[in-house]
Amino acid sequence: MNNITVVKIGGKLIENKSLLNDFILKFSKLNRPKILVHGGGNIATEISKELNVKVDVIDGRRITNEKNLDIATMVYAGKINKEIVSKLQELNCNSIGLSGADGNSIVSKKREVKKINYGFVGDITFINSKFIIDLIKNNLTPVFCAITHNSKGQLLNTNADSIASAISINLSKIHKVKLFYCFEKKGVLKNIKDDKSFLKKIDWKNYKILKGNKNISNGMLPKLENCFYALKNGVNHVRIGDNEMFCGKNNFTELTI
Amino acid sequence: MNNITVVKIGGKLIENKSLLNDFILKFSKLNRPKILVHGGGNIATEISKELNVKVDVIDGRRITNEKNLDIATMVYAGKINKEIVSKLQELNCNSIGLSGADGNSIVSKKREVKKINYGFVGDITFINSKFIIDLIKNNLTPVFCAITHNSKGQLLNTNADSIASAISINLSKIHKVKLFYCFEKKGVLKNIKDDKSFLKKIDWKNYKILKGNKNISNGMLPKLENCFYALKNGVNHVRIGDNEMFCGKNNFTELTI
Repeated sequence: MNNITVVKIGGKLIENKSLLNDFILKFSKLNRPKILVHGGGNIATEISKELNVKVDVIDGRRITNEKNLDIATMVYAGKINKEIVSKLQELNCNSIGLSGADGNSIVSKKREVKKINYGFVGDITFINSKFIIDLIKNNLTPVFCAITHNSKGQLLNTNADSIASAISINLSKIHKVKLFYCFEKKGVLKNIKDDKSFLKKIDWKNYKILKGNKNISNGMLPKLENCFYALKNGVNHVRIGDNEMFCGKNNFTELTI
Repeated sequence: MNNITVVKIGGKLIENKSLLNDFILKFSKLNRPKILVHGGGNIATEISKELNVKVDVIDGRRITNEKNLDIATMVYAGKINKEIVSKLQELNCNSIGLSGADGNSIVSKKREVKKINYGFVGDITFINSKFIIDLIKNNLTPVFCAITHNSKGQLLNTNADSIASAISINLSKIHKVKLFYCFEKKGVLKNIKDDKSFLKKIDWKNYKILKGNKNISNGMLPKLENCFYALKNGVNHVRIGDNEMFCGKNNFTELTI
């Protein structure tokens, strides 16, 4: 089997319809085998507002109560996932939308309550590589949303970056894997205030320096930690960028260890 | 391959959590291969109310505008589908939730505007039997929601009874198929006002008589038409009943032609 490309999309790329359609077109043209993992941007938050459901935030972290989980499941596994799949079908990319419960593909454990009770948030414990590879061998392109399950009948909200990273690491035990994090920025920025100032390369040492200088924004820190973790655990390439990352060389940030 | 059982659930069976859980337990114990098709009961209507989205009804028929479709996709393909799949996983029934867009499994055509413009409602034009059989051969139990697509990037709201019937007819070309319509009533009632008065058997002739006598409720007519259509087109058994239909003989209405 050829190298597998895992692409994760999130942020404004999901919220903005024309950016999303442009991404879907580019993704449909990528060589197979490929896997898509998507977050939900702020769409769940907006629907929560319309439904008068409060989203609690403690220390900058979102809490997922039962109602928030319902909304996340509706928005991620329902609306966003099925819209992406139907658009990929139009472009002759035979895709299949999945939550972690489907085919028991991603199992997670409800996060333990320590300082903060995150609610129905799951940390990944198992990736069903065999199931994912079987789909790929049947010429399907899996499209994962950020909902997993605990094997005991409970759905759990799970970080989409972590899903992309965990799938990539697991598949890299048997295949070569490239992991692309695609969002609305050109990559990791040298200067937070200048969207065009992206780094073509970043290694662990640079990262530590930029982090120390507070030159990397808060939201980017867990994403980069995920990336380096994937590289250290067998993933062959990790790249961060916008839709242009599919259009040529050096149009993104390449991470190295 | 053994005979395939297709079970469709809807109505109050979906709305009532304890009835639904009881059904899921019984369904998990059915011999494989099996396929589940579910509607959404009134859950989408309730969420529409919470979101202040009007549901237009013309001549007793629901109209699906863009917002209604969004809600149907969220509720059917998201919340209900994933909750059922996660509960089946708990019961060691390895299931996979699907809309018609997934794996291009069910293609439909937006209903033509004649007297009424139904909006984003799809009538089935293609069932991807190969894809469904491949899933079954991989020891998976497909769980279909009532959302299909038109292969051109448009999701469409589709009657779950029709989906169950179309899947059954298509699979019956190669395999023996039993089709069970499971809801909150014991079967086709002799007397609409007496829930216990179900008929053990009904054939096309009886049906016409009962219809003429107005002894069959309005909602039941399209369901029964679907059933007879399935029988006439190759499906081996069609039964209508409640959760007890899985517990013994003659606990349901058996249709014959």
